[in-house]
Amino acid sequence: MKLCRYGTAGAEKPGLIDADGRIRDLSAHIADLGPAEIAPAALARLAAIDPAGLPLVEDSPRYGVPVTGTTKFIAIGLNYADHAAESNLPIPSEPVVFNKWVNCLQGPNDPVVIPRDSKKTDWEVELGIVIGTRANYVDEGEALAHVAGYVVVNDVSERHWQTERGPTWDKGKGFPTFGPVGPWLVTPDEVGDPQALSMWLDVNGKRVQDGSTKTMIFTVAQIIAYLSQFMVLEPGDIITTGTPPGVGLGQKPEPWYLKAGDVVTLGIEKLGEQRQDFIAWSKPVGEAGR
Amino acid sequence: MKLCRYGTAGAEKPGLIDADGRIRDLSAHIADLGPAEIAPAALARLAAIDPAGLPLVEDSPRYGVPVTGTTKFIAIGLNYADHAAESNLPIPSEPVVFNKWVNCLQGPNDPVVIPRDSKKTDWEVELGIVIGTRANYVDEGEALAHVAGYVVVNDVSERHWQTERGPTWDKGKGFPTFGPVGPWLVTPDEVGDPQALSMWLDVNGKRVQDGSTKTMIFTVAQIIAYLSQFMVLEPGDIITTGTPPGVGLGQKPEPWYLKAGDVVTLGIEKLGEQRQDFIAWSKPVGEAGR
Repeated sequence: MKLCRYGTAGAEKPGLIDADGRIRDLSAHIADLGPAEIAPAALARLAAIDPAGLPLVEDSPRYGVPVTGTTKFIAIGLNYADHAAESNLPIPSEPVVFNKWVNCLQGPNDPVVIPRDSKKTDWEVELGIVIGTRANYVDEGEALAHVAGYVVVNDVSERHWQTERGPTWDKGKGFPTFGPVGPWLVTPDEVGDPQALSMWLDVNGKRVQDGSTKTMIFTVAQIIAYLSQFMVLEPGDIITTGTPPGVGLGQKPEPWYLKAGDVVTLGIEKLGEQRQDFIAWSKPVGEAGR
Repeated sequence: MKLCRYGTAGAEKPGLIDADGRIRDLSAHIADLGPAEIAPAALARLAAIDPAGLPLVEDSPRYGVPVTGTTKFIAIGLNYADHAAESNLPIPSEPVVFNKWVNCLQGPNDPVVIPRDSKKTDWEVELGIVIGTRANYVDEGEALAHVAGYVVVNDVSERHWQTERGPTWDKGKGFPTFGPVGPWLVTPDEVGDPQALSMWLDVNGKRVQDGSTKTMIFTVAQIIAYLSQFMVLEPGDIITTGTPPGVGLGQKPEPWYLKAGDVVTLGIEKLGEQRQDFIAWSKPVGEAGR
């Protein structure tokens, strides 16, 4: 099952993608796709609905983040050996954990703002996990039972802020618009093995990342089990699991970064695609939003 | 004005502390103390209420976190020169930013769980800022206008997880129960200069931290202005601003840490006091909570 939230930012409706790839409206069944609606029993109820009986959504609406109510946006760093090498950092002996501020979350095709004075805005295609049931001190064998589904994430990063301005990474990872997620939340039954998904990212049509989740150092199950020793994972939490090689920081002969006008497209097998216009910073986020 | 949330965890009611230090119930005026109720106009409405006309709360109820709806729990590290020295780390040239997972937030006097296998559970008395209005790219001069109030925070930390298990700190800062906040949200008019507050922390009645916000490296105004360059601060966000010397990690002749049965008391001038029993880990946080 592929679920989505579609429509104007802040007023998204829940939807389901039918076998022909069209959006079917779920509003008659659920008000939104939040923690309550992605619990196992709730997902089972949605799976029992015949898509053909749901209203077809005409046109091509905007996609929002496919889950709402996220209270943690957790990220794993250096989870592909080749990416650690291109970052000139050692292969980690256990997962590197950092945070993306939840209000950087946005729809998969919304424009991304290059921060004022940023020189090193970079891309990272990543497999995202959406948690469906609370997880604390779970072991690897039971970890995948806590997954509601998978999503595409672009873990947009400001490298100078991340790595050259103090010992922690969080300041370079959560600028507003730095968290495109979606288009769909794809349930595990439809994804199959999460460690066998090809993934790619293009900048202005040029392929820069071309990898697979099969080369992750720590698997989805290992990451969930590991994180659950340090925190309580809650329904709706999103975990983004690291990026394969080919980010701007790792380009040869020298790094290059995104500039206003660039277009980034990315995708993961079975999970859909994203497209972002990178735009110049123009003004602060105001009291009433952007 | 001193505001609070009192009662059973998950079912707190809003309250106001009267001139005699007693809780007066605010339920007839507001449903809870969240982002909407700590906006400037909403606080002004509460300030216009005569406390004597509000129902007196009998007994001594539990205090909850004095604000709900927090989406970011942001922390500043090494913000007192002497604490940086005791941590054997250089005095930072700009604020060190890390994250406490929001579901570690709890009432000021709730027990704190020492994690399974933890060897280095430590304490940190800190001044906390509660944001009242959205802040993005604000400068130092306007920063304090975004403050709804101040709180006491114990930035409970697992040092081994924080500093010896990879390059980021987030895994040692957000274990459930690691975020006692309160008892009160004290509005800026009642606090006066936030850089002139004495602060202290005792372990089993022994004074271990004895400092003042006057020795912060980066002031409240500087921290808000700084953070607002990297993220959008939202109403209800809590920023904890670093700790003075005297944590377990800095004890001489050698570090010592908390164990089950220890009692930690702490306080900040004008902001009230906290008391936590540190207890042994017993079981995972389950589906339905603890």
